[in-house]
Amino acid sequence: MARNTTVQADTAAPPVTEQLAAFVAEHPSLGWSEKVEHQARRTFANWVGCAVGPAEHDAVRCALAAVQELAPAPQATLLGRRERVDLANAALINGLSSHTFDFDDTHLKTIIHPAGPVAPAALALAEHLERPGRELLDALVIGIEVACRVGNAVYPDHYDRGWHITGSTGMLGSAAACARLLRLDRQQTQMALGIAASQPVGLREQFGTMTKPLHPGAAARAGLMAALFARHGFTASRRALEAPRGLLQVFSDKTDWREITEGLGETWEIALNTYKPFACGIVIHPSIDGCIQLREQVAAADIERIVLRVHPLVLELTGKRTPQTGLEGKFSVYHSCAVGLLHGRAGEAEYADAVVRSPEVIALRDRIVAEPDGTIDEAGCHITLTTRDGASRTLRVEHAIGSLERPMSDEALTRKFVDQAAPVLGAARAEAAAAAAFSIGGAADIRTLLEACVPQR
Amino acid sequence: MARNTTVQADTAAPPVTEQLAAFVAEHPSLGWSEKVEHQARRTFANWVGCAVGPAEHDAVRCALAAVQELAPAPQATLLGRRERVDLANAALINGLSSHTFDFDDTHLKTIIHPAGPVAPAALALAEHLERPGRELLDALVIGIEVACRVGNAVYPDHYDRGWHITGSTGMLGSAAACARLLRLDRQQTQMALGIAASQPVGLREQFGTMTKPLHPGAAARAGLMAALFARHGFTASRRALEAPRGLLQVFSDKTDWREITEGLGETWEIALNTYKPFACGIVIHPSIDGCIQLREQVAAADIERIVLRVHPLVLELTGKRTPQTGLEGKFSVYHSCAVGLLHGRAGEAEYADAVVRSPEVIALRDRIVAEPDGTIDEAGCHITLTTRDGASRTLRVEHAIGSLERPMSDEALTRKFVDQAAPVLGAARAEAAAAAAFSIGGAADIRTLLEACVPQR
Repeated sequence: MARNTTVQADTAAPPVTEQLAAFVAEHPSLGWSEKVEHQARRTFANWVGCAVGPAEHDAVRCALAAVQELAPAPQATLLGRRERVDLANAALINGLSSHTFDFDDTHLKTIIHPAGPVAPAALALAEHLERPGRELLDALVIGIEVACRVGNAVYPDHYDRGWHITGSTGMLGSAAACARLLRLDRQQTQMALGIAASQPVGLREQFGTMTKPLHPGAAARAGLMAALFARHGFTASRRALEAPRGLLQVFSDKTDWREITEGLGETWEIALNTYKPFACGIVIHPSIDGCIQLREQVAAADIERIVLRVHPLVLELTGKRTPQTGLEGKFSVYHSCAVGLLHGRAGEAEYADAVVRSPEVIALRDRIVAEPDGTIDEAGCHITLTTRDGASRTLRVEHAIGSLERPMSDEALTRKFVDQAAPVLGAARAEAAAAAAFSIGGAADIRTLLEACVPQR
Repeated sequence: MARNTTVQADTAAPPVTEQLAAFVAEHPSLGWSEKVEHQARRTFANWVGCAVGPAEHDAVRCALAAVQELAPAPQATLLGRRERVDLANAALINGLSSHTFDFDDTHLKTIIHPAGPVAPAALALAEHLERPGRELLDALVIGIEVACRVGNAVYPDHYDRGWHITGSTGMLGSAAACARLLRLDRQQTQMALGIAASQPVGLREQFGTMTKPLHPGAAARAGLMAALFARHGFTASRRALEAPRGLLQVFSDKTDWREITEGLGETWEIALNTYKPFACGIVIHPSIDGCIQLREQVAAADIERIVLRVHPLVLELTGKRTPQTGLEGKFSVYHSCAVGLLHGRAGEAEYADAVVRSPEVIALRDRIVAEPDGTIDEAGCHITLTTRDGASRTLRVEHAIGSLERPMSDEALTRKFVDQAAPVLGAARAEAAAAAAFSIGGAADIRTLLEACVPQR
């Protein structure tokens, strides 16, 4: 027991924990438009592909080795791997894997990667409970709604303070999705959200280490366990989110409760979700997009010089002139544009060490100049390409492919899935898995998808 | 990727993550005085008793039911229960149990309950690894040092903001203890602390619900897993604690780095640990202590009136005049003093519902008056007792029994252990468990203790 000092408490907050719980427990299945449902399919499929791709990455191997020290029961599938672990650890590992390449979805309003903490928890629980794809997809939409609305309420203060918002709101999304799949009632769901509220995960300081992708994984696990605890009668504060010492006031100075309550059940955050066409930071996507467009007009061998005019942040974040490794390549607008011009893409394969060190890529990279220009919007760029014959052409990108304004097509998302999954699963299984992921909402049994996501060896 | 806005960052912080890691990995076994070692034994034994006592409490039952949905491997002992679970979940359940009665140890400088997150993780891991008691006790001392020093660095701002500091620093103590038991080197230990840093647990808003004791349990689990991850090569920021976006600057405005570095390895926070003689908030301990002293002078039947003069906080926090349940009794200075006068103690048994409703207790309770007095120190109280014959006597308590100035004796701690454990284990096993707990540092095999802590049925 201690002093009652409270820092600038807002004691008049609406009962958002209860309101969210009612929404999670009671909103009807498929209670949204076909447009929203379409985004749900895309979000899910994009996430599965992103989780399969890094299945053999060191981060996944290390985490799995640690988890195996617990001798977990083989309850649930690990995407892209043959081992099985208990459902909580499956949520953790699949969540970690899906964020390892930083290639997953982005809710641009908050920079939350919303599927990361929600989808793996829902998937593991749906597998264990043998729930149909419809319930899984409902849980995904609803879980993402909860995490993103809480994110909207605290962004940007919470993020600026140093929290990795994907993990620090994600445990609420995971708890919501799992409460839904467990068919908890309103009161139990309120407890699940409350239990999860005590367990935010993630610091931005971890960016560049394996702990960054651990954040959605640990958040997935925490939310899933919170829902299981609530199912068995465990209790938490009924005002765990909004009370003066509840989560939101504790971890953010900004708490805009209307972002949580207004239009709840009517507007959908998942409709604002975006998918990366390129396996690197979004800030250089306009430049890559422009280079890929120019590739159709000019052969790489004819290029004399390329001048990019970009928002100053592009060089601040991705200004590496001479990257030596694949990871460094992701922080080089020069490398990224070179592979765009040469290969017409910038997937994970274009950030292999060997590609970054390829003489052909380096030769082209060295012909690229990038100039910061405060008049250029972050979403766009301006490119001037000069050919050896002295001719020049210019291109302005207003919105990159993958943005809300120019979304990737379903076909492009399918290619992205298969590109990532084929090295792990083989091409045929990767195609089958992509098809199953895109049609999960109608699947009576999600095992078809899960079986396709396990490599045969 | 996002904007680089940072709120008032301290970029000149010393490398405390690395310094703590070196301390954890390299400080010699038993590298402290016998006085410190004595407190370590007391801390451990007090904690075991507090974990056994609530083993059948609803909070433990609910949590265990949820954990059993994972079909955990029977790797580690649950104190006071016959079920076994995997070592991570054993850390969670034993940590939860030990804080359920709020009867565990207190580091008064920070109000951290230091054993709660550290001891259960160390115990589960030591059991699994078959480590001797010496290594277990070393890990406890070192883990508590890490958690309390981080607590000192951020208290009180961090706590005032609404964090339950036991869980929000406890994952670091748990990670440190487990890194030590795993014999991780300095670099791996630094990673373990870094991984744990992303997972602080606990909001003060949860006080009064089952999620409060979950905080040390979840922190124990998170720290243990962080150490296992680090053992297998998982990476985190090397400056996860002190960087501008590291844990301490993210979750506290106060960051006094000297509290972490000064005297590290020379002074010991565990030497400042205290143990509760009464199963309620520390603020009413002086009043109970005074009443127990007066009991030796006056029979309860002769009491006409008692006037307590107490610090105003006593009534703010524990002013319930007519408690109806055991839990409410803990928030009633009147009930607590009545049982002190009648029974000479205020253990968990004195907060049973039946005792709170007993006519004899109520009759005495109603003769007690408490007056707030700003001149009275929080650590003390002033009591005037008037007997039916009109005589009155006064007593001033400067420091309550259980405080640093008037510590409980080892004998009193043993009685506290047995009082809690006997209803769960039976008297003989409870005595054996207490003896084994107090001598754990010399135990070649900790199984003797663990076996004594499992009830026979």
